[in-house]
Amino acid sequence: MYDYRYLLKFVTDLFIHIGCSRDDAGAVASVLIAAELRGHSSHGMIRVKEYYELWKSGRINVTPGVKVVHETPSTAVVDGDRCFGMVAGIRSMSLAIEKAAATGTGWVATRNSNHFGIAGYYAMMALKHDMVGICVTNANPLVVPTWSISRYLGTNPLAVAVPALKEPPFVADFATTPIARGKLSVAEKKGEKVPFGYVQDADGNPSDDPGILKKGGGMVTLGGDREHGSHKGYCMTSIVDIFSALFSGASFGPFVPPSVAYLPVPEKKVGEGTGHFFGAMRIDAFRPADEFKAAMDEWITTFRNAKPSSGQTRVLVPGDPEREAEEHNRINGISLIPAVVDDLNSIASELGMKF
Amino acid sequence: MYDYRYLLKFVTDLFIHIGCSRDDAGAVASVLIAAELRGHSSHGMIRVKEYYELWKSGRINVTPGVKVVHETPSTAVVDGDRCFGMVAGIRSMSLAIEKAAATGTGWVATRNSNHFGIAGYYAMMALKHDMVGICVTNANPLVVPTWSISRYLGTNPLAVAVPALKEPPFVADFATTPIARGKLSVAEKKGEKVPFGYVQDADGNPSDDPGILKKGGGMVTLGGDREHGSHKGYCMTSIVDIFSALFSGASFGPFVPPSVAYLPVPEKKVGEGTGHFFGAMRIDAFRPADEFKAAMDEWITTFRNAKPSSGQTRVLVPGDPEREAEEHNRINGISLIPAVVDDLNSIASELGMKF
Repeated sequence: MYDYRYLLKFVTDLFIHIGCSRDDAGAVASVLIAAELRGHSSHGMIRVKEYYELWKSGRINVTPGVKVVHETPSTAVVDGDRCFGMVAGIRSMSLAIEKAAATGTGWVATRNSNHFGIAGYYAMMALKHDMVGICVTNANPLVVPTWSISRYLGTNPLAVAVPALKEPPFVADFATTPIARGKLSVAEKKGEKVPFGYVQDADGNPSDDPGILKKGGGMVTLGGDREHGSHKGYCMTSIVDIFSALFSGASFGPFVPPSVAYLPVPEKKVGEGTGHFFGAMRIDAFRPADEFKAAMDEWITTFRNAKPSSGQTRVLVPGDPEREAEEHNRINGISLIPAVVDDLNSIASELGMKF
Repeated sequence: MYDYRYLLKFVTDLFIHIGCSRDDAGAVASVLIAAELRGHSSHGMIRVKEYYELWKSGRINVTPGVKVVHETPSTAVVDGDRCFGMVAGIRSMSLAIEKAAATGTGWVATRNSNHFGIAGYYAMMALKHDMVGICVTNANPLVVPTWSISRYLGTNPLAVAVPALKEPPFVADFATTPIARGKLSVAEKKGEKVPFGYVQDADGNPSDDPGILKKGGGMVTLGGDREHGSHKGYCMTSIVDIFSALFSGASFGPFVPPSVAYLPVPEKKVGEGTGHFFGAMRIDAFRPADEFKAAMDEWITTFRNAKPSSGQTRVLVPGDPEREAEEHNRINGISLIPAVVDDLNSIASELGMKF
């Protein structure tokens, strides 16, 4: 087990070693370690090597001039100058919060960025300001529209954070596909099949093969198939793509650059890098903040006290599992799989550091 | 087949007969007929009798004082004074558009309203102003949170409309459940089973019985079950509920009043009536409008030209089926099922009108 403060310092130092400013390295490290604490290790330390390889391949600018390229009182467009996504992400969400403080709501579209970790990190930045936070991002294409075999969409997550009074906040943070890609890799490594409803084969037929993406298959949208509402998942995934890319001028759909160095950047260019979209809404722009938050307490306790299904012990409110994981992991430390430890040792040795 | 203009006039006259102003009656009729034209008859003429019965039961105020109760330059809260939902809906979305014109984006939360028809109608109002339109509403509870047997959520739809240049707009308008409730009634009347993944029984077990709601069962969220991402559907449905009710002070979750007179209003009151939430975003608050719309054309043609799965002939863009239905129904007329015609005849006779 690794103490989260040790990992935070190590990752910060590592990114300083490759040329990031202390602030930028701290941004990358904070979001990666937040993912580990919240139990989403698919977006945590496992990404360090991927980010390092992306930097080595020349796709990341470690001294970016992140700048606001267009602005109104409640909106802005930020250009990330090929930065690590966390650098543009924290800057953009901070700007959305500033604009909301001044005008009620703030909306920032960001282009020319890269993978930014967990969307929930940015949405949650709004909470301490008594604001609702919203964050979406597009991602490299692995997902098919309903009735198609073309991998034209990412797993495009949506995060929404809503403050409460005495209760912990409502925090939803989810990919708009039934599963994250990482689950396919795990099943494949174990030699297991996956349930039908996650992936399809190269012709668009249902498949239970977790390695099907290498054989021309694709991931499906939430709903799984048309009969079970995959067209609604396709709508959601598309909305996230449009908000991330069209407002900002980033790449959309099939043209979003991969977040790993071993996949090539698409030849056709329709925009600048990966796109994100951030929103902050001051709750007192609608109702007195304490009234809103007290009502939110009632919402949360109502749902937490819903009757469990047969065989279940309790009903969760979005954000509960991650908060509980964080409480546990802050005290007990973070476990890393051996392959990740090996990667970190090898990078440390290349950079003359020690893990 | 009925000409849509005939239905529009008949429904307007009907609601004037029960006391609505010409404008308010026109608002109700416009949204109901738009649903018929766009192929969503579940939200069309079939609702006339339900609305009429709701009015007879005293739950609708036909001379409402719809008013703005709180306001900032980019936000507002509207109280519908127990009006037909369309009256508050059109007023609220118009206000969101006005605010967006002035400040870049406009956000209006609405309480004390009722069923408002198709969410897409309001989102699409933004299109001609070169704005992205957003609309959500909560609805009476039929849907269970993941791992629960408590019917605490509605089928809570989300609509997003995005303008394009030469292409028709992107219009997504969907319930955040695998199916609309109407599909269960149809299957039940035909004596058919439904696929697993739509409903569960009173203990939370999967069911294929379309009549299960009468036996304590519930509808499930998009994803169907935990393994296939129903917790993500639960997040979506919850987000819609929170935006609809918490910003405005409307009733949330289990306490949303039913849209039919034969179901009782919940005893516990946590807010005022049904809630909606409307957003309008001026695209030139982010990028020059023509640049955005040209990029949107490219998004739309890219997805429309995606490769179809084996056995499919084409890939749809959200909004395609409804637009095609509307083109057809404007020319060829709208067909009504006999039960709806009987209802309309009976109401007309009660009111001394003729259908």
